[in-house]
Order: sequence, then C-alpha cells, then structure tokens
Amino acid sequence: MDYIDTMTRFSRPTPSKIVMLVMDGLGGLPVKELGGRTELEAARKPNIDKLARSSALGLHRPIAPGITPGSGPAHFALFGYDPVKWEMGRGVLETLGVGFDLKQGDVAVRTNFCTLDEKGLITDRRAGRIPTSECARLSEMLDKKVKLAGVKTFFMPVRDYRGGIVLRAKGLGANVGDTDPQVVGAKPLAAIGANAPSRKSAKLLNDIVKQTRRIIKNERPANGILLRGISSYRPYPSFKDVYKLRAACIAVYPMYRGASKIAGMDLIGQPQTLDEELKLLKETWEDYDFFFFHFKYTDSKGEDGDVKGKVREIEKFDKAIPKVLKLKPDVLILTGDHSTPTQLKSHSWHPVPLLISGPALRADSSGKFGETECSAGSLDIINATNIMPLAMAQAGKLLKFGA
Amino acid sequence: MDYIDTMTRFSRPTPSKIVMLVMDGLGGLPVKELGGRTELEAARKPNIDKLARSSALGLHRPIAPGITPGSGPAHFALFGYDPVKWEMGRGVLETLGVGFDLKQGDVAVRTNFCTLDEKGLITDRRAGRIPTSECARLSEMLDKKVKLAGVKTFFMPVRDYRGGIVLRAKGLGANVGDTDPQVVGAKPLAAIGANAPSRKSAKLLNDIVKQTRRIIKNERPANGILLRGISSYRPYPSFKDVYKLRAACIAVYPMYRGASKIAGMDLIGQPQTLDEELKLLKETWEDYDFFFFHFKYTDSKGEDGDVKGKVREIEKFDKAIPKVLKLKPDVLILTGDHSTPTQLKSHSWHPVPLLISGPALRADSSGKFGETECSAGSLDIINATNIMPLAMAQAGKLLKFGA
Repeated sequence: MDYIDTMTRFSRPTPSKIVMLVMDGLGGLPVKELGGRTELEAARKPNIDKLARSSALGLHRPIAPGITPGSGPAHFALFGYDPVKWEMGRGVLETLGVGFDLKQGDVAVRTNFCTLDEKGLITDRRAGRIPTSECARLSEMLDKKVKLAGVKTFFMPVRDYRGGIVLRAKGLGANVGDTDPQVVGAKPLAAIGANAPSRKSAKLLNDIVKQTRRIIKNERPANGILLRGISSYRPYPSFKDVYKLRAACIAVYPMYRGASKIAGMDLIGQPQTLDEELKLLKETWEDYDFFFFHFKYTDSKGEDGDVKGKVREIEKFDKAIPKVLKLKPDVLILTGDHSTPTQLKSHSWHPVPLLISGPALRADSSGKFGETECSAGSLDIINATNIMPLAMAQAGKLLKFGA
Repeated sequence: MDYIDTMTRFSRPTPSKIVMLVMDGLGGLPVKELGGRTELEAARKPNIDKLARSSALGLHRPIAPGITPGSGPAHFALFGYDPVKWEMGRGVLETLGVGFDLKQGDVAVRTNFCTLDEKGLITDRRAGRIPTSECARLSEMLDKKVKLAGVKTFFMPVRDYRGGIVLRAKGLGANVGDTDPQVVGAKPLAAIGANAPSRKSAKLLNDIVKQTRRIIKNERPANGILLRGISSYRPYPSFKDVYKLRAACIAVYPMYRGASKIAGMDLIGQPQTLDEELKLLKETWEDYDFFFFHFKYTDSKGEDGDVKGKVREIEKFDKAIPKVLKLKPDVLILTGDHSTPTQLKSHSWHPVPLLISGPALRADSSGKFGETECSAGSLDIINATNIMPLAMAQAGKLLKFGA
C-alpha cells in the first residue's frame, strides 16, 4: 500500500529542501573475502559514516519480503507509489526517459538490436553491444521506412544496443508478451496479445519485426530486433500534486529519468558522470525543493559480481557527499533502490540500508552506515513507500492527519 | 494481504528443494519454573541451535497482532494464503483430510459424538473420547440409515470422537452456526442458517440430528452428535500453479492433511509417528521439491499446560533435525503455525519463532533458536504470508518484479 492519497491531502509547500541520494543496488550480503562484511561495511567512507552519526538508520523493503524488484518498481516505491498498484512497463519508462512525449493510450516497447544468423536464430541478443551512435542511425532508418496503415510509429535510440518503439492509434492494448526468448540459438518469439486490443497491437508489432528484418537485413552486427516490456502509458499523480514539491531528477540513465518523469519531476540536463550530476545539483539548487539524485555504478558492479569494484564505487560516491552537504539540504535521504549482492550478480529481495538526516530525529549513535548498523537502527525495517512520508515530515511539509 | 497473484506471475520451476518444518503451537511465554525462559529456550536442542548459527531468525504473525488463529487459518497463512481472504471451515478441512473427495458446493460438517442424558442434556461433549474404531462403526451405521429426500449424505469417522458429514445437493449454503453449545448440562443448539440457501442446509442438518438421535439412542457412551465448522468447499489456487512446486504433505492429523490438500499438495502415506514421517520424507525426497512436515505434539502439550512435556517434545523433534539436514534441502524453514503458551493452555496471538536457512542470507550470530533471539533477528517480525515468498526467493525460484 502507499500514502499517495494521504500525502495529497496533508502536504504543503514550504521553502525547505529534500535531497534523495540513491546508490543503485546498494545493499549486499556478508562477503567472505571482506571478512564477513558487506561492500558497504568494508568501504572507506568517512563522509557517509560521519553523516550517519547524526542520522536515523534503518532498512527498507522495496516491495515485500522475498520479492525482488526491477529498477522501475523499486524507484516508484522510493517515490512513494505502491509498485504493485502503480506497475509500469519498461517500454514506457525508457521511451519517456529519452524524452519522448508519450500520450495516454500509446503503446511503448523497449527493443534490443540483436544479431540473427541466416536461419533467423539469435547469435547475440545485444548485437555486440553496438554504440548509441549506431543504434541512432538504425533507429532513424527504421523510423523513415517502417509503414503501418492507420498507425503512427516512432523509433528511437535509448542507449547502446537498446532502443524504443511507440505505437500511436486508437484501441491498442499492451498485454503483449516479450519476443526476446532470453537465450541465444533460438528464434525470436512471436508477439502474442492476451485480449482483443492487445492482439491488435501484437499483429502490428509482428509486422514491424518483419519489416525491420527486411530493412536492416544487410547491416552488421545488428540485423534484427527483440521486443520487451510492451506497455501502455497512463499518467500518475505528480510530485507537484501529491507532495506540493518542485521536483528535479538528476540521473544519467534513461530508465530512471523515465520513472522520474512519470512522477512529474523535471529532468535536469543530460549528465554523463557523477561530477556532471553534482554540477547540475549546485546550478539548479534554488529552482527546486526536491532532488532525486541517482548513482548507477554500485548496481553495475554488483551485477558483475565485482566485490572490489562495488567497494570502490561506494568510496567514490562518499567523496561526493561533502558537495551535497555544502548546499545545506534540510532533509537528506541516502539509500539504494534495492540490493544487488555480488554473490548473486543480480537484484535481490534483501532489505536496503537507509539513512535519513533531518532536524527532528533520534540519531543512531553507531557512527557507521552499513547493513549491520541499519538492521539495529531506530527506523526499523520499513516499506520503501514509507520513506517519502518520513522525509516530508522531517522537512515540515506535512499537516497533521485529523484534528 | 497475500502474494498469491505475485507468486503466480513470477515463480518458476527449478530443481532446488524447500522443506517447511512446522512444530505446531511452538511459540511460548516466559515460564517461572524455567527461570523466565520459554519451553523453546529451556529445551536442550543442540541440532536446532547449531542450525540457527547459519540461519536468519525472526518472528511471524499468523494473522495480525492480537488475532489468535485456529489451525486451519494458521496453516493457510504459512502456505502463503491470506487466512482472512481464504477462510475455510473446519468441516471442509477435516473431511478432505480423511480423503473424502469434496466437490465445489458440497457442505461439510465436523461432528463430535457426544453423550446425552434422558432429558437430552449434554453430559460429555466428547462421549468419553471413544476410539476411532467405535467412531467408524457409528458413522457407518448413520451413513446407511440416515435418509434425506433429494440430498446425498456421507458420514465418516475422522479420529477418536471426531467425525464428518457431507451434504451434496444443489443450492445449499454454509452460513450455519454450530450446534455445540461448548458446555455440558445444556441441550445441543438448533442449526440456524443466516440466509435462504443456508436455512435450507440448517433444516437438513436439524433433520440429520433428529434421525441420528433415534438411530444411536441405545448406544453408549456416544448417543448424540454435535455439529461444528459447517462450511462449503471452493477450490484454492494450487501450489503447482502459484509456486510451480511439486508439493508434498507429511502429517499425521486429518486437519493439516486437509489444509494441504486444499493447497494442492500430495498427501504422502498415512504416518502415525515422527519416525514414520521421517521415513516418508526420505523415501519421497526425489519426487517433490516442497515438503510440508508437521509435528503435532508441541501444541498438544501447550494445550495441556504441560511445561515439561512441551520441553520434551521440542527435544524429541531436535533429534529429527539431522535426518532432515542429511537430505540437503536447499532451503529449510523451521517454525510453528502459532503460539500455544502453556500458561494459557490454548492457541494464542503471540508472534511465532521463525528460522530460515538458505544460500543467500545474513545469518544471525546468536547461535540459539528461541523467542528472545528471534525477537532480535534480522528477519524482523513478518506476516506468516511472507514466509513462502522468502523461501521461494532463497530457493532461486522467483523472477524479479518488473524490469
């Protein structure tokens, strides 16, 4: 459950500022080579640990015990939206994330360019990870040449081998399965719709795949596409309406930018590095009272199973902390969207370390920010959707519920 | 709430195996004569305590704070079904538990044979606890002689003085109160239906009671019946569909077997002792990837208020642990379905000790499995319906929610 309706009723605009720092995939499990500590516990992070001494600590559950979230649901939960109730597919998130102006009812698809052999079998699901420039060239070609009667189609590059397609027509459904079989050596699956409007979309998508195959047949290495995360767009109540916040997203990757846009945040610049993100934060400080600030690489190293790399990324982020604190946010949240233990090389269901700094709290005296301290922290284990209400309360932006 | 829909969407079959060991009524309260320890804390249980050193500990709430569950709801919650949403009466559970093949719409009743005096007042609600053989003889007699126009009736023995009745006809309701007044010296109550289809059932049931009274009038000590847990059967989504698990139930008593059958588990053998249960577990190990393994006597001793007895039963179960571990389950759950403090001599609402052993967890280092350690455990206090998702996650059987 979430508190979107409650926040909408009781939030009020004030000059105080909230910063939400998200280290993607932050949480971990005890690592043998680190003497049973997690990467977060082992990292040298004097700035974060100093911050911890005056902050409240705890853990949050992105969805529920045992449920591993994808990046989209995990971020919606951080933003206060129940991720089960407000489920939104990756097609929508990524096309919004690259700045496409989706309308209600549009069907959006996340695509992979892939390599197919002469029999049509997949030999590389990511077409040798072609660069964004090549993805852009191919997307432009498809955008010009693919034709469907009575339906507007939009092709766009996302990042590297990742692209997006949007279908715009009346009466299209989005309950359509992926065509990516998730393995090499197989043919792409046919798109299959689960109901009449979705079957209409599936037919159009299968036609697109066929036309694409013809158009880019002689390209190398990308000579085919796989469709994933087929989804239709519906508006969410915005941060402005729910929290009365002028909210900004500072993030490198389209996926997180898309989720922020759905929540009604402004997408600030197009940073490519942590330094550029910090620069944008400083430059736009006066224009907003909520900043979602996303750092990707803790998750990437977790997914790679790279213990030292994850430690290093945490240490790198630690150096950014003084630059954030110098701006004097009234409330600071430091957490992850989910855990990505290096042992599992994937997202996981484990609760995520959470730190909240603000003017009216019981500070945990441990002086360390780690899974062990957070597990004993005064915030307890809370649902991710509880974080925004707590931050709003710390920021003095919530009226009381009832007289 | 539960995660049945989420599990149905995201579970996948894998070769890993989950064992759920349930010590019925496990939880307790501090006992003076045990120096303020609970029975679980006082028991000598080296195998369980050793297991605790590499496991995650916590507590679970069967339903909600303050709500004391019956055995049926407590087990449905352990199996992941919200016990409020998926309420099922004892009549259904026990008749299914003895192997009766209930159809949707059947009305099932749990009965007690009782002793009535010449005025029709109850002198013993359990007819001197007649043995199952006597219960079977009387049930067979009733099954032959009771006649209702247009309605099929089935009488069956359950265990000791407990029996079951099934009514099969169109349009029967099951919103009918018990006829057991729960005290001696009173007459059995009339069955009363709360709506038209249930009034139809109540009329039939009152007729059955009248005919029974005539048929077994001269029997001793059982010369009457009391009706309880009148309920109608509806199918639940099965473990196979929800969790993609081939699931087995190893349990002595009909009640737990019935609940397992409703959840789509296979009922393995008809064990009468813990040793027979362990033998069945070993014999069928290769055929299943989920085992629900039930141990009754911790609850029985709790209900009797027998402190030493409860300690002894826990110690007895401890000796079974190595035999289970030898089979190398990937995930092991050790818990109770509810608490049965000896002080209360009944089920209670207190959170229940929970241990989960698996490959991807933060072990609690206490090295003891008891209420005190569980209360400080890393799993926190969770709802019973969260246990199956956690076990599924540990077993690597869950895909992530969203991209």
